[in-house]
Amino acid sequence: MERPLDLRPVPPGEPVSSLDELARALRCLPGVGPKAAQRMALHLLQHDREGAQRLARALDAAAKLVRHCERCNTFTEEAVCALCRSPRRDPGLLCVVETPADLMTMEQTQAYGGLYFVLMGRLSPLDGIGPKEIRLERLLKRATDGTVREVVLATNFTNEGEATAHTIGELLTARGLAVTRLARGVPVGGELEFVDAGTLAQAVRERRSFDR
Amino acid sequence: MERPLDLRPVPPGEPVSSLDELARALRCLPGVGPKAAQRMALHLLQHDREGAQRLARALDAAAKLVRHCERCNTFTEEAVCALCRSPRRDPGLLCVVETPADLMTMEQTQAYGGLYFVLMGRLSPLDGIGPKEIRLERLLKRATDGTVREVVLATNFTNEGEATAHTIGELLTARGLAVTRLARGVPVGGELEFVDAGTLAQAVRERRSFDR
Repeated sequence: MERPLDLRPVPPGEPVSSLDELARALRCLPGVGPKAAQRMALHLLQHDREGAQRLARALDAAAKLVRHCERCNTFTEEAVCALCRSPRRDPGLLCVVETPADLMTMEQTQAYGGLYFVLMGRLSPLDGIGPKEIRLERLLKRATDGTVREVVLATNFTNEGEATAHTIGELLTARGLAVTRLARGVPVGGELEFVDAGTLAQAVRERRSFDR
Repeated sequence: MERPLDLRPVPPGEPVSSLDELARALRCLPGVGPKAAQRMALHLLQHDREGAQRLARALDAAAKLVRHCERCNTFTEEAVCALCRSPRRDPGLLCVVETPADLMTMEQTQAYGGLYFVLMGRLSPLDGIGPKEIRLERLLKRATDGTVREVVLATNFTNEGEATAHTIGELLTARGLAVTRLARGVPVGGELEFVDAGTLAQAVRERRSFDR
């Protein structure tokens, strides 16, 4: 350790210490820059080598075992995930989300009892992500397999998420399916003063009758 | 994935998916809570499985190979680290720091040309860390081996770091060694208005003659 951890890419063939290499490898984690990577590497070596080896095993196992569910496309270790196999879910409802994290967020609400389809992305023409890249044909096939009576679009309310919902909505209604979108409006507990104008405008346009 | 990632400790014997286990194992990293761990696990599986496996190898290698330098106690893969072996460093100067990160920070200044001793900690009686736990006897042996003419105390300027410096200073001056401490004062580029009173008081007490 004659010099500070050097985090530049290594020219092939040049030897690096395993501490340098660890700090470099940690940068694959989202939100971890050079400083944090160095701090993490030193912390693990000084205080938690057992944790480091457990993490090594977990990374290796997950990278090798986790694949995509054949029905809903989320992460699973089996051909069809436990949620798709569950007899307690309503097979007539299909909720379309962008990522497995969104699926988990939906599940935490305990407000939805149907099945899912995970896009693993969103349409983003500027990044070269079109219908083919997020494999919309798989969603169309799944949604028109005769068991689905309503598709709930739960992509994000960002520009890209809205565009994705729009495209999917058009394709599915053309095939005669009932398609719905998550409601927009004032958040629960929200004060009007602090709600942005766009959200409030939507809440006015999509107001519902009081006794409903 | 029938439910959100469950990050509670697992009762022994209960099966967990490799995705759950990865998110759990990532929590050994400093500053990574349940949410961030889940985000990291999903990111790696979706976008960077190669990075995950590289990280697995790096963790395993570092945990197995990295040990402490016999002379200065910092992290190295050899018996004596490259810095201690270097003929370009002044063996008469010994700088005492708390951690390998502090050593790296000192090196980045390029203002110090001597050798180091890394405590791997600091005295902290409230946490049960006394002279034995940070193995001060090893430092005493190293500092009195006949080659060292000055010991530079570069522990942190926190209460614990100051107490550690005080204890080490007493022990080493009693053995006839010249002992110095990093200067305290106004930071380079600092404006008096924004310097805390304690620092400014030190800068007044330790003022130096103008032409020095």
